[in-house]
Amino acid sequence: MSGPVPPDVVSLPDYERHARDRLPADIWAYVAGAGADGLTRQRNRAAFDRTELAGRVLADMTGASTATTLFGIEMPFPLLLAPVAYQRLAHPDGELATALGAASCGAAMCVSTLASATLEEIAAQASSPLIFQLYMQGGREAALSLVRRAEDTGYRALMVTVDASVNGVRNEEQRAGFRLPAHVRPVNIEGMPGPVSRAGPGESPVFKGLLDGAPRWDDIGWLRERTQLPLILKGIVHPDDAEHALRLGVDGIVVSNHGGRTLDTLPASLDALKAVSERVSGRVPLLLDGGVRRGTDILKALALGASACLVGQPIMHALAVAGPVGVAHLLVILRAELEVAMALTGHASVDAIGSNAIWTHG
Amino acid sequence: MSGPVPPDVVSLPDYERHARDRLPADIWAYVAGAGADGLTRQRNRAAFDRTELAGRVLADMTGASTATTLFGIEMPFPLLLAPVAYQRLAHPDGELATALGAASCGAAMCVSTLASATLEEIAAQASSPLIFQLYMQGGREAALSLVRRAEDTGYRALMVTVDASVNGVRNEEQRAGFRLPAHVRPVNIEGMPGPVSRAGPGESPVFKGLLDGAPRWDDIGWLRERTQLPLILKGIVHPDDAEHALRLGVDGIVVSNHGGRTLDTLPASLDALKAVSERVSGRVPLLLDGGVRRGTDILKALALGASACLVGQPIMHALAVAGPVGVAHLLVILRAELEVAMALTGHASVDAIGSNAIWTHG
Amino acid sequence: MSGPVPPDVVSLPDYERHARDRLPADIWAYVAGAGADGLTRQRNRAAFDRTELAGRVLADMTGASTATTLFGIEMPFPLLLAPVAYQRLAHPDGELATALGAASCGAAMCVSTLASATLEEIAAQASSPLIFQLYMQGGREAALSLVRRAEDTGYRALMVTVDASVNGVRNEEQRAGFRLPAHVRPVNIEGMPGPVSRAGPGESPVFKGLLDGAPRWDDIGWLRERTQLPLILKGIVHPDDAEHALRLGVDGIVVSNHGGRTLDTLPASLDALKAVSERVSGRVPLLLDGGVRRGTDILKALALGASACLVGQPIMHALAVAGPVGVAHLLVILRAELEVAMALTGHASVDAIGSNAIWTHG
Amino acid sequence: MSGPVPPDVVSLPDYERHARDRLPADIWAYVAGAGADGLTRQRNRAAFDRTELAGRVLADMTGASTATTLFGIEMPFPLLLAPVAYQRLAHPDGELATALGAASCGAAMCVSTLASATLEEIAAQASSPLIFQLYMQGGREAALSLVRRAEDTGYRALMVTVDASVNGVRNEEQRAGFRLPAHVRPVNIEGMPGPVSRAGPGESPVFKGLLDGAPRWDDIGWLRERTQLPLILKGIVHPDDAEHALRLGVDGIVVSNHGGRTLDTLPASLDALKAVSERVSGRVPLLLDGGVRRGTDILKALALGASACLVGQPIMHALAVAGPVGVAHLLVILRAELEVAMALTGHASVDAIGSNAIWTHG
Repeated sequence: MSGPVPPDVVSLPDYERHARDRLPADIWAYVAGAGADGLTRQRNRAAFDRTELAGRVLADMTGASTATTLFGIEMPFPLLLAPVAYQRLAHPDGELATALGAASCGAAMCVSTLASATLEEIAAQASSPLIFQLYMQGGREAALSLVRRAEDTGYRALMVTVDASVNGVRNEEQRAGFRLPAHVRPVNIEGMPGPVSRAGPGESPVFKGLLDGAPRWDDIGWLRERTQLPLILKGIVHPDDAEHALRLGVDGIVVSNHGGRTLDTLPASLDALKAVSERVSGRVPLLLDGGVRRGTDILKALALGASACLVGQPIMHALAVAGPVGVAHLLVILRAELEVAMALTGHASVDAIGSNAIWTHG
Repeated sequence: MSGPVPPDVVSLPDYERHARDRLPADIWAYVAGAGADGLTRQRNRAAFDRTELAGRVLADMTGASTATTLFGIEMPFPLLLAPVAYQRLAHPDGELATALGAASCGAAMCVSTLASATLEEIAAQASSPLIFQLYMQGGREAALSLVRRAEDTGYRALMVTVDASVNGVRNEEQRAGFRLPAHVRPVNIEGMPGPVSRAGPGESPVFKGLLDGAPRWDDIGWLRERTQLPLILKGIVHPDDAEHALRLGVDGIVVSNHGGRTLDTLPASLDALKAVSERVSGRVPLLLDGGVRRGTDILKALALGASACLVGQPIMHALAVAGPVGVAHLLVILRAELEVAMALTGHASVDAIGSNAIWTHG
Repeated sequence: MSGPVPPDVVSLPDYERHARDRLPADIWAYVAGAGADGLTRQRNRAAFDRTELAGRVLADMTGASTATTLFGIEMPFPLLLAPVAYQRLAHPDGELATALGAASCGAAMCVSTLASATLEEIAAQASSPLIFQLYMQGGREAALSLVRRAEDTGYRALMVTVDASVNGVRNEEQRAGFRLPAHVRPVNIEGMPGPVSRAGPGESPVFKGLLDGAPRWDDIGWLRERTQLPLILKGIVHPDDAEHALRLGVDGIVVSNHGGRTLDTLPASLDALKAVSERVSGRVPLLLDGGVRRGTDILKALALGASACLVGQPIMHALAVAGPVGVAHLLVILRAELEVAMALTGHASVDAIGSNAIWTHG
Repeated sequence: MSGPVPPDVVSLPDYERHARDRLPADIWAYVAGAGADGLTRQRNRAAFDRTELAGRVLADMTGASTATTLFGIEMPFPLLLAPVAYQRLAHPDGELATALGAASCGAAMCVSTLASATLEEIAAQASSPLIFQLYMQGGREAALSLVRRAEDTGYRALMVTVDASVNGVRNEEQRAGFRLPAHVRPVNIEGMPGPVSRAGPGESPVFKGLLDGAPRWDDIGWLRERTQLPLILKGIVHPDDAEHALRLGVDGIVVSNHGGRTLDTLPASLDALKAVSERVSGRVPLLLDGGVRRGTDILKALALGASACLVGQPIMHALAVAGPVGVAHLLVILRAELEVAMALTGHASVDAIGSNAIWTHG
């Protein structure tokens, strides 16, 4: 399915277009499908698109660099590969291909609890830093066993997803009748317990069972005491939740609406970042997840309070089109676009990017 | 015409899409047609779509429930089936099929004066609570005889529609040449008098006859004194009218623009709710009617002052596609979507939903 | 070309749709073409469409009426037929057919200097009140001779168009290569002088000749002293120009952007009305011209300061589709729509319509 | 390829439409392609389109004129032909054809460093004033040699482009695989050095080489001391950069976002003009570049602080459709449209156009 990079693929939207043509309709519906009417997915892009940049000219760019360090991890530029589940849906080598692509420039990769390769296999393949993404739906002990495996294999940080206590209303996926193919399995958690409906006639399964295993704030406190890894919460949009997380001693927050895949009509990721950043005031690093497709998006997120961004669905697009080479190319594109944006707004380093990079004179 | 639920029907918009394909064009124009240019119909949706939710994470959802009580009626979740006229246009069993569907989860059903089955037949079929919707165009005595029949048959409340003193400018319906088929009749009011034009040459029939039977405020006062049933006015958008209604001792108000079917360019139902709720300040329960298609819509209406919502046209869509099973499925969908929305905004009960469920940090 | 009213014609937009199908492309480009990119034409509609109405219920509509009196002219409802040029382009009988249609309900008709029938022929045909629209481009004496003819034939008022000192940039018309057909001529001014270019090589004809005959403020003052007819200026959008007009003793102002046919990106007619009305404060009656297609539009204009509206292009649509019957039908539609709008906003008379008819609670 | 002006070409958008049909797809992608997603290109137009004009009537236009003088150069109207590169892509005679067209009304023409004819050839052909546009990427000495050639050949001013330190993300061009054809060459700078990548594996070429030759503020100061020609900086959007330029003694500023071809999501040119004009307060003349397609656009830019506008891409459209005649026609169209706009807003001279030409009463 995947092959050489087509000559007209020069940006992330191009990968998306080609991937849509190549993937089976039901897999595409899973990969690209958003919650309900897809309004939050649209808003993620609209927020980036409407935010204007303050162009600057004739700046001295001597020694300019995109390098940064986050949670003790050196990064070539402020972008992480997000913890996308089931990457074998897009390419036979799945997460292993992604790890290979990430290695080309040393980008950090987040590995999902729902990876279709074991976290140990991925660690064996990877030569760039790894972060383990944790779903706690299976209970504390199951979660802790995953954490220990990640610690033992050299993962550098722990990213707990907290915004998916229940599946979103994924209508596109449901209409397409998506089911996980036999060769793609959540190999890291097979055999662990999952949520079961207890609903009787005339009752809804959501409040009768499906929420039973959802993690709560005390689970985060419990986990915090049991690992030395940097602990990052992924999926916060509300400043009060950010405040709560800080009280529990987390090391970082990923502001995210899950790419619009959980609750539709959540605010755009960039709007949520502004609200959370104002509250957090630099006490911990913030990352932005949701809708990033351009180097200018990264610059805007940094200007509005993020230390780095995550890119998620485009990994699947790049895998589907060109496998590990696609992932490497995706990283090259984003980095070069970020450098052009830094040059044309007069920023020679990531740390120099502040709120005055945003145009407000209009 | 109707059959099993198609596999790609997983939301109310899916029912609409399928119903459009199945119903004859003229009946579709009646069912879906709005007033004039359809701008208020569009606004009803746009207001829900632009309202953003304040997502919350890691909340304790133990014992979560959607149950509520309104006008002394216990409801499995805060949704009523609206008083849609002539339901036999969509399914041979019409209102009887709807009553059967409503029974699956015990949802309250409003029965229209213009039902195509008698209110007694519907009461005999129904096992969930019934509310009788009253048009007073036929005069006080005719109205009172309908009220007495409803009281005698166990209807639990009276909902008087006050926003249809004259037919709206239903251009879509007119263009399609819609006429009520012979087998679909307003059986509850046959033989009662209706408005007649008195217009001479060069005059307009609206002010010359068609308005003659329209109810006025004193008719509401008159009716209030003649029934013990909870009295609800349906069709108010203006705070001053809400105030007037309260002075007459009504028990509840349905904020509604008639789904955009009467006067085009009325404000969106959700915007009207905000204005009315601010004025009423909880003195009586408010219900919202117009544009509800998603569980998130219900949550937003509750956050902005409603105690429950009505869903109208989707009943016809569900009837057309899958009869009583469609209506039952529609209720399952809305309830499950509401529960997902409550879980992902951290509300364990209907009463807990307040204005902070709406995102205002953007 | 024209025939009986098609059964699916139930609103003014329907007439437009049918007329587009029936008229030759070049004539359609003339009739419907706007200035440059058509942005003001779009804005005229957008302003009406975005303005929301404050729906009211249960009002007492006893004795409701749309009748009004303006410049001493009794009108069945506050709508005038605008002075559209060359009506024979749409129907063989042109202005005579319009006069016949207007007679059906007694609506006032404005006759253009560029009518394709003589003002005397039209007066002979008409049985409803006539207003003469004057272009002064031919010079003072030519203008005065037209005024005398109008006075002598019983015209009730004079409407001087002041916003067309030079032709607009009518690109749609130019692209279609529109030329006036031989049988359609400006019979009222044949033989009178018109603007001629004096431009040399590398010069523009606009400032070299085409503006020479354009009227100026002193021409209005001159004219004011020479006629007893009510004097109305048509084409004002700026409050300062309205003020100037009042100083010269005019009796009324038509707020108009010429339907978007002169200068593109002028403000919407309804927005201009608001600005002019605030300044004029009722010192003279204001009329609104530009974009009126619905009875709700008339109600909105009245709420925002107008005493009546003009409807222009739809006359050509109605003529093209159904001749005089079309014009009569157009008037029936607008009047009935206005009555429905008055009923559903609780206004029993034209004078009762004020700014509180507009929704401002959103 | 080019021929007589087609009869349906009556505005600049018409030239664009025809040029798209005539030029090969890859050349069209170069000519019309914007940066990344083309959002700034869209915004350039949207800003003009949403800005409304204050129409005025009955003004005295005796002796009206569009003439102006800028940098000591007399101009028939406040429009310059922008320094578009490689004009032979659109027409065999390229810049020589443009010079011929400009001569028809004496419009000033800016000649690009990347012209496909030598600046001496163009000067030999031209009979209207010339301005030389300078890229300094080749280093100070190379730049100075170009300046000396321009001085020696009678160029009247120097326009240094400062907003293109690195190529924009021209995805449209890249997708189309555009390469400069053999017969179109940057003849003025052949043999001069250009930027070269020094990037190693896993590094980005942008910060490793491509930026090396980009000019900086001190280069502008250096250049200022070495020429007596009026010095204009092209490509400023930020008021702070305008302030910096003034401190270095520049004679004028072209507010420009490079037509949306460098950094996508820069603000619209008209919005940037407002911000820069407020800061500069008339200390030097401002010119606006980017999105100008209508005479009304020129009037709006002048109202908001510009002394003149540049028109760029439309030159290529006109060349492709009708060669020098097309360029002459383009100038006729814009000038006539400007005159109509001045007449209908009551401005008899360019200097009279101020901020009250913009509608602000809405």
